[in-house]
Amino acid sequence: MEGQETGEQASVLVGKKPVMNYVVAVLTFFNQGVKSVAVKARGSAISKAVDTVELLKRAFVKNLNVKSINIGTETLEREGRKANVSTIEILLEKPEE
Amino acid sequence: MEGQETGEQASVLVGKKPVMNYVVAVLTFFNQGVKSVAVKARGSAISKAVDTVELLKRAFVKNLNVKSINIGTETLEREGRKANVSTIEILLEKPEE
Repeated sequence: MEGQETGEQASVLVGKKPVMNYVVAVLTFFNQGVKSVAVKARGSAISKAVDTVELLKRAFVKNLNVKSINIGTETLEREGRKANVSTIEILLEKPEE
Repeated sequence: MEGQETGEQASVLVGKKPVMNYVVAVLTFFNQGVKSVAVKARGSAISKAVDTVELLKRAFVKNLNVKSINIGTETLEREGRKANVSTIEILLEKPEE
């Protein structure tokens, strides 16, 4: 499963799989009646998160509403030392029918 | 030179160089008195554009204002066939002194 719905906010975490996997995950939420999906990524997957949204806009969901884009930093602890990794969260809303 | 100022909007195009090069390019604009700098990237450099902004926020410019983040698609023609590439533009404003 590519995505999960926690409380009110459905989200898809973009990682190492092909872009189409994440596109399908977002479409699955929309087809289930979910109105709003957050596409999230960290580090080098950030570019793929943008690709996912752009492919959705271009080929799958006419008038897709990109409601907000936020960037940030997470601090990870790996092998005892801290590393900062950039994050992105792109909030999508399904257009009204 | 990493950046250029065209008309009113100073911009830094993030590519294959180390993140610090682009951080310095933005700082150079701010130190010259430029109030607003657009950090732009295409394709896999998008992640590095986010890294550039996050490093600026974290280590160099307290209260840096991320005014807007826009994503889009550019169509490139390469070897006779068309390719779509994602783009990002992050608009930064220097905080008031």
